[in-house]
Amino acid sequence: MADGRIDGLVTLDLDRARRRGAPEAVLCDSKSVAQVSAIAAEYARLIAAATPAADGAPADGAGPDGAGRSPAPLGPILFTRADPDRAAAILAHLPDALWDEEARLLAWPAEPPAPTGGLVIVACAGTSDLGAAREAELTARHLGRPTRLIADIGIAGLQRLLDRLPELREAACVVVAAGMDGALPTVIAGQIAAPVVALPTSVGYGVAAGGVTAALTMLSGCAPGIGVVNIDNGYGAGHLAAQIARWAPGPA
Amino acid sequence: MADGRIDGLVTLDLDRARRRGAPEAVLCDSKSVAQVSAIAAEYARLIAAATPAADGAPADGAGPDGAGRSPAPLGPILFTRADPDRAAAILAHLPDALWDEEARLLAWPAEPPAPTGGLVIVACAGTSDLGAAREAELTARHLGRPTRLIADIGIAGLQRLLDRLPELREAACVVVAAGMDGALPTVIAGQIAAPVVALPTSVGYGVAAGGVTAALTMLSGCAPGIGVVNIDNGYGAGHLAAQIARWAPGPA
Amino acid sequence: MADGRIDGLVTLDLDRARRRGAPEAVLCDSKSVAQVSAIAAEYARLIAAATPAADGAPADGAGPDGAGRSPAPLGPILFTRADPDRAAAILAHLPDALWDEEARLLAWPAEPPAPTGGLVIVACAGTSDLGAAREAELTARHLGRPTRLIADIGIAGLQRLLDRLPELREAACVVVAAGMDGALPTVIAGQIAAPVVALPTSVGYGVAAGGVTAALTMLSGCAPGIGVVNIDNGYGAGHLAAQIARWAPGPA
Amino acid sequence: MADGRIDGLVTLDLDRARRRGAPEAVLCDSKSVAQVSAIAAEYARLIAAATPAADGAPADGAGPDGAGRSPAPLGPILFTRADPDRAAAILAHLPDALWDEEARLLAWPAEPPAPTGGLVIVACAGTSDLGAAREAELTARHLGRPTRLIADIGIAGLQRLLDRLPELREAACVVVAAGMDGALPTVIAGQIAAPVVALPTSVGYGVAAGGVTAALTMLSGCAPGIGVVNIDNGYGAGHLAAQIARWAPGPA
Amino acid sequence: MADGRIDGLVTLDLDRARRRGAPEAVLCDSKSVAQVSAIAAEYARLIAAATPAADGAPADGAGPDGAGRSPAPLGPILFTRADPDRAAAILAHLPDALWDEEARLLAWPAEPPAPTGGLVIVACAGTSDLGAAREAELTARHLGRPTRLIADIGIAGLQRLLDRLPELREAACVVVAAGMDGALPTVIAGQIAAPVVALPTSVGYGVAAGGVTAALTMLSGCAPGIGVVNIDNGYGAGHLAAQIARWAPGPA
Amino acid sequence: MADGRIDGLVTLDLDRARRRGAPEAVLCDSKSVAQVSAIAAEYARLIAAATPAADGAPADGAGPDGAGRSPAPLGPILFTRADPDRAAAILAHLPDALWDEEARLLAWPAEPPAPTGGLVIVACAGTSDLGAAREAELTARHLGRPTRLIADIGIAGLQRLLDRLPELREAACVVVAAGMDGALPTVIAGQIAAPVVALPTSVGYGVAAGGVTAALTMLSGCAPGIGVVNIDNGYGAGHLAAQIARWAPGPA
Amino acid sequence: MADGRIDGLVTLDLDRARRRGAPEAVLCDSKSVAQVSAIAAEYARLIAAATPAADGAPADGAGPDGAGRSPAPLGPILFTRADPDRAAAILAHLPDALWDEEARLLAWPAEPPAPTGGLVIVACAGTSDLGAAREAELTARHLGRPTRLIADIGIAGLQRLLDRLPELREAACVVVAAGMDGALPTVIAGQIAAPVVALPTSVGYGVAAGGVTAALTMLSGCAPGIGVVNIDNGYGAGHLAAQIARWAPGPA
Amino acid sequence: MADGRIDGLVTLDLDRARRRGAPEAVLCDSKSVAQVSAIAAEYARLIAAATPAADGAPADGAGPDGAGRSPAPLGPILFTRADPDRAAAILAHLPDALWDEEARLLAWPAEPPAPTGGLVIVACAGTSDLGAAREAELTARHLGRPTRLIADIGIAGLQRLLDRLPELREAACVVVAAGMDGALPTVIAGQIAAPVVALPTSVGYGVAAGGVTAALTMLSGCAPGIGVVNIDNGYGAGHLAAQIARWAPGPA
Repeated sequence: MADGRIDGLVTLDLDRARRRGAPEAVLCDSKSVAQVSAIAAEYARLIAAATPAADGAPADGAGPDGAGRSPAPLGPILFTRADPDRAAAILAHLPDALWDEEARLLAWPAEPPAPTGGLVIVACAGTSDLGAAREAELTARHLGRPTRLIADIGIAGLQRLLDRLPELREAACVVVAAGMDGALPTVIAGQIAAPVVALPTSVGYGVAAGGVTAALTMLSGCAPGIGVVNIDNGYGAGHLAAQIARWAPGPA
Repeated sequence: MADGRIDGLVTLDLDRARRRGAPEAVLCDSKSVAQVSAIAAEYARLIAAATPAADGAPADGAGPDGAGRSPAPLGPILFTRADPDRAAAILAHLPDALWDEEARLLAWPAEPPAPTGGLVIVACAGTSDLGAAREAELTARHLGRPTRLIADIGIAGLQRLLDRLPELREAACVVVAAGMDGALPTVIAGQIAAPVVALPTSVGYGVAAGGVTAALTMLSGCAPGIGVVNIDNGYGAGHLAAQIARWAPGPA
Repeated sequence: MADGRIDGLVTLDLDRARRRGAPEAVLCDSKSVAQVSAIAAEYARLIAAATPAADGAPADGAGPDGAGRSPAPLGPILFTRADPDRAAAILAHLPDALWDEEARLLAWPAEPPAPTGGLVIVACAGTSDLGAAREAELTARHLGRPTRLIADIGIAGLQRLLDRLPELREAACVVVAAGMDGALPTVIAGQIAAPVVALPTSVGYGVAAGGVTAALTMLSGCAPGIGVVNIDNGYGAGHLAAQIARWAPGPA
Repeated sequence: MADGRIDGLVTLDLDRARRRGAPEAVLCDSKSVAQVSAIAAEYARLIAAATPAADGAPADGAGPDGAGRSPAPLGPILFTRADPDRAAAILAHLPDALWDEEARLLAWPAEPPAPTGGLVIVACAGTSDLGAAREAELTARHLGRPTRLIADIGIAGLQRLLDRLPELREAACVVVAAGMDGALPTVIAGQIAAPVVALPTSVGYGVAAGGVTAALTMLSGCAPGIGVVNIDNGYGAGHLAAQIARWAPGPA
Repeated sequence: MADGRIDGLVTLDLDRARRRGAPEAVLCDSKSVAQVSAIAAEYARLIAAATPAADGAPADGAGPDGAGRSPAPLGPILFTRADPDRAAAILAHLPDALWDEEARLLAWPAEPPAPTGGLVIVACAGTSDLGAAREAELTARHLGRPTRLIADIGIAGLQRLLDRLPELREAACVVVAAGMDGALPTVIAGQIAAPVVALPTSVGYGVAAGGVTAALTMLSGCAPGIGVVNIDNGYGAGHLAAQIARWAPGPA
Repeated sequence: MADGRIDGLVTLDLDRARRRGAPEAVLCDSKSVAQVSAIAAEYARLIAAATPAADGAPADGAGPDGAGRSPAPLGPILFTRADPDRAAAILAHLPDALWDEEARLLAWPAEPPAPTGGLVIVACAGTSDLGAAREAELTARHLGRPTRLIADIGIAGLQRLLDRLPELREAACVVVAAGMDGALPTVIAGQIAAPVVALPTSVGYGVAAGGVTAALTMLSGCAPGIGVVNIDNGYGAGHLAAQIARWAPGPA
Repeated sequence: MADGRIDGLVTLDLDRARRRGAPEAVLCDSKSVAQVSAIAAEYARLIAAATPAADGAPADGAGPDGAGRSPAPLGPILFTRADPDRAAAILAHLPDALWDEEARLLAWPAEPPAPTGGLVIVACAGTSDLGAAREAELTARHLGRPTRLIADIGIAGLQRLLDRLPELREAACVVVAAGMDGALPTVIAGQIAAPVVALPTSVGYGVAAGGVTAALTMLSGCAPGIGVVNIDNGYGAGHLAAQIARWAPGPA
Repeated sequence: MADGRIDGLVTLDLDRARRRGAPEAVLCDSKSVAQVSAIAAEYARLIAAATPAADGAPADGAGPDGAGRSPAPLGPILFTRADPDRAAAILAHLPDALWDEEARLLAWPAEPPAPTGGLVIVACAGTSDLGAAREAELTARHLGRPTRLIADIGIAGLQRLLDRLPELREAACVVVAAGMDGALPTVIAGQIAAPVVALPTSVGYGVAAGGVTAALTMLSGCAPGIGVVNIDNGYGAGHLAAQIARWAPGPA
């Protein structure tokens, strides 16, 4: 079907919500402003056409079995890694979207679905990791999970982390964002029963510049129960966490 | 408490089953045969001392809340990356353990617990990835999940993969083992709703030697929903999958 | 012969069309505007001198046997990786050249030769790969092949690719541009009989930044029939595809 | 169909000859002797079952359009990177296969098909590159092309290369194998009209050890018309060359 | 002076004890058995010649000011990274040296000097790090410090580390040996006031193989107070720790 | 305790001076101006609240034994890697702090504590290393040590170094900053008895760009007695040197 | 002696001309404008003080034996890698220096010494390498050699190189600058008797970006007689060539 | 001419002595024993045929101009990197060749030519570098230079180096072999007027393993006048040194 295909530019994966339980997101930072604008316009057109079906049909309702859904829901649409110029281009077409500058994320609709499943906690090692952490949190929230953010519990001051362990143990999945040495996910994974999504960030300098050292550390962690995503990929971390927490009991 | 501490050699983390819901595993390949033997002997001693408590107390029962468990269960003990010499040293002390040579894994008790939670499928791209895949499958099974192995569905012949999609969609978590280009996890993740644990293997030569290319590809995958573990870390992949599938409904 | 040698600056390889069947291209991005301008001026001078011989003599006509051609044809002249400043400097001397900003390419004459040989299809994984893809397509077209561009068929949504397979099977050579995980060339090569030219792009971030991961994946692809070019080298990919498709039957 | 699927071990891609014009090859060096033996046995079984259909049906006849072929031909079967132990295991099941120890390749049937298409020349820089070069040559020959090998024309003694240029210009495709600095493909590509398949080898020491430097050089070559394959991937180079030369006129 | 110079083979740095407060050590693993033997023989000759002066003159007594010492003491001579063959060659000339196989170290005289200065504690993350840890401990001890070894307190089970903090706080310098993710030095440095010498080990596999990941993590540690030495350089770590602890008050 | 925790932004480690003998420093360059400003404001608030306790209580007085200190001293607060914008934001809250632009460091109080312990000398190889060297010197001084800076004694002109050896031998610890080949720390360590802290800098180009070559050289130095810190980590180098020199006798 | 030492900033190596036969050069690009200015001012002061001795005393006259020279000659002073700002700062103090913007080099005095020794030819592969090539040529000329520059003879068009071989064979030393694949030095070294100084440049993109591939190729070259310098180190290449050509007979 | 071409195996570059002033050498370690044997046999055949012309015609006599020489001299033939098996195969055909096991080099004739040109000194940092150093020395000697070897003057004990400076200043070219940190060439180059050939060796462990760190350090050296060769390439270093010293006055 021709919906979602724009000239020689883009083919939206409108089937993804049915197939995967979460719709496609648009990665903005390697696209031109004009390309991003054209994609937002197409989504606006699709939303206008599908409006009656879209509300009341949470994308998350599409399960592994999700046969027979029709028409495709236009549930949470996410635009990731959007700088202010790209955000403005999107908001011109989707004026009621949410724009979180720190997370560089836009979400439509602005209101996340009512949360279901287990709690996703996003913890970060330092203040500088907040951008990626916030992207992860918003992604998980707009994919339908209850979320919480815990900032600045890096391992140089272990007490800050130990103080938060009871809270961390409430989560069905913990995303841990860290740059520099990237050691925090291993320490947390060793203390809790829930899976950890390790999110290396590009925060650092010298041999830690760009986040490769953090990524290597996280892959090498001696505690099992850790899955690593790409450096600064807060969206991927939040998406995976939302999937992991899907079936878990909600927070007390 | 002195249980599990051997002179200046090792301090077993006997609290881990209570804290994490799965006990510590012993990584054998960087330990000497004598070191491995001493550790197996200590476990044998602990098993002898704790036998009445161990049966009937599935390790997996220890949840995030799992307060008040006592005494610590000696549930599934795993020895990983064990070559035949180290395996023999272990079996001398734990003669009724399971020894899977392809997976280089020993499990005590030999019988896995009755499966609970969602199905874990381990898929591998090629015949050469079977060792790591089997390590992942056995780990998930001995941590209490129902498991299945699907071999040789690499992307060079896409039909082999498409034929298995219905099966893959039954899983609560899919571990995907691949060497060479490491592209299989992305393709599978894009087609299913469950999370994917990507397991790079050291299978390959030239620029793919050692598995680093596969690991990079998996971290860079453009489909969200993938968590990557270290190269050849079948144990870690299986452990994470068992955690992820814990709360999911079982297979039909 | 002194034609094409400018002071201590450049020695044009005017013999290349006779020797290789395709003329030299000028890589602009590491040259100063003044250097690019001087080269364009020399070409303008040569064109003025050679005009009667140049039209009607398609560069592609020079085959491996191409002995006795005289004088050297000034067939399609390409300027690659040209930013707007360099493009302006070139157009000042060659005002009727084609300037494609997305491909950063200038071609003189603006009109490509009448197409001969097999169809070259350029496929790209995402919208962000369009620049390199377009450079490849224009190069192949100006070297004399029929071409087509297929955008945004990345493997995260396999159906988009499967829908296009019949079209891809019409090609005598397929150029596949991809950044991030770079897995698309392997998937396509496994499904078609024609050779694939894999074109890694620098699209990506984290461990995929700069395109090295994509290049490694493409070199490691488990499907044979793939030749890889340098990252973002759309010109090289299009050139190689034009050579490969030279002898194949044209599209139906 | 169940043909070609062995327990949980392997799924042969028997459709490949129809789909791609060349059948699957079996990479031996990361498989155990037992695995290789089981695969050879399955092929022997398939050959016995299909013998009437196999002769007279050259695998190469399957073109991009190749619709309606039935049943699948069991044309040239290749086993690559086979050491003497694996070769012996294969020959036990396929006793009339060809075994070339230098190329580490087995081919069944031993006799290549009658050559069609353009000439494939395999050139190598030094004596030490002969193994990979020979693997490339045998692959192209068993996929149906006329082939020739030119040894030891490295660029340290340019005259040796210049002497062979007329011969190299007869080829429809030239595979160039080189280790150390890997510069030979660029020099040759700059002198001929046919495409070059660059085959880096692991020959070298110091910064050239393992072939990565050669691969980087080949990707960076300033002459267009080069497609690079993985280090030591003689099979992939020969396969690609056979595809490229398919439509070209045969040697005089 | 000609003492310590052997033909064209070696020039012993006999002045080092006076200049640096600790004598030269002989790195064995890149020397042939014959070379090691010749060096041991020269030391035996020097010991025989200097015996009256050597006893009673602790090498450590040579301070930054250490003017006027004469003649140079032949205090603790260390041979590092010695396998059994090289050890045997040394013991043939210095039969009363100490040979510690796990540390691959020989020390002459076998008895360390009476300890002075602050306590050096060597902690290691896992059982597999014991070789490097033991080399560090013996080096510090033979350079004159009181020492202690704490094994297997990796961060996957934080309690094991927290239990030992009071002990670690007694040290004037802590050497921390770790492979895999190499995160232990940062965690310890964040909890104590004494400097930490971080000793990465080559224990690990996948991206942690060879110890580079551990070294990078240690250099990137977000807690200050860490100095890193080369991978597996237990000798260097112990030497630095002995220097650091020189002026500190001794253990209670 | 709630002091030092700001909303979801930062958790100051106010216990560090008691625990480690030196307070936390704030790394500015990966934080936004607003984040830095909020942290400085919180410190200003704490200083205002704690003023009576802060003066007269040198942070350095907190030793390994330092039990029972109360309340926590607000001794030297350091802000590192601060550009002019961030510095201005800090000075707005802490107007009497010291701002050293070359070192990119702010210190409060501006006046360092009265020096105790051994002399810390910071030596640098070239003029371009002065920024990192100065950061190290100021850090050591504000943590309570006597310090001195020796500039431009790189090994290309050995005499410049030899002239300064008597001075270098006065130090209880020498920090050596070098970029390019990073060879200076080894040369100095080989000539003195005190420990050397090697500080690689990002000064250099080509293969030395970014400082990785310098870091590798320093880790590989054949003279023992060297601890390496991260590239450009002048703060870490100065902190470690201050810890090392703590117990040494002061300069004559 | 205090000449050449400026506060805590720089220690000029004024003895170098006597010791090495060529004076120190000032690397500008990692120094601030103020630092460069201070150094130029000190040189201006030294020149003013030494003027009577400086003219007529070519620096090159100071040979290995050059004992007894007094006072030190202030022969050719070079400032390398100087951008326009730094150049202006230098020219403010040394207004009659030569400033070559393409080479980013300043030389005082502007007039090179009368040439002695063998001819130094600087050849470069492409137009983009001219900056580094020109830096090498000017350095060799100001250190006293006759020089010549040959541009744009890259190996993609071998004839351009073969045409220049007679000229290249006149040289006592050839500097070869190349980026991208860096193959030119090997080709030239294989054809001439004089030593080759290989100068990798940062010209290139993709895997050739930054010049590392060119450097690796040059180190791996299969023709002996090549010494490699750092990427873009035209000064080092020219200096080495001047030393090599010192004793050779001059050009005919 | 057919001399020197063996079937499809090798094409000897017999013209090299005339063209380059030094004949081709045979790199043995990546060739099979049979290949090496065939090459040695061909040389033996050529020697037998050419004997009358060979004596009295030193290869080195062929200068850059060396026109009109006939027939080609079979001067010093070198076989490099030959293990005992390959050496035995060579000696079977050339029984009077010299075999130096430490250098892994064979030379025919065994007697080097009478030395001409300047002195080549080969210095090495440690005992472990002697193999590469000896290969360099023998190569330079058999190409006609006077040579000397200075062992074990690494920079950890600077006095050992300073003691030898007068000797080093006698050389027309100094080859400096070093592994580990590779800092020795810079220190030596800074003290002498002659060019330095830097020879990194693979001696080392940890981050220095394989010699890459040494190579990087040598390329980054801040003293000009250094040309670097590949790791362990003693032959290349000796060849380059022989070329450099060709025109220099001989030792006193």
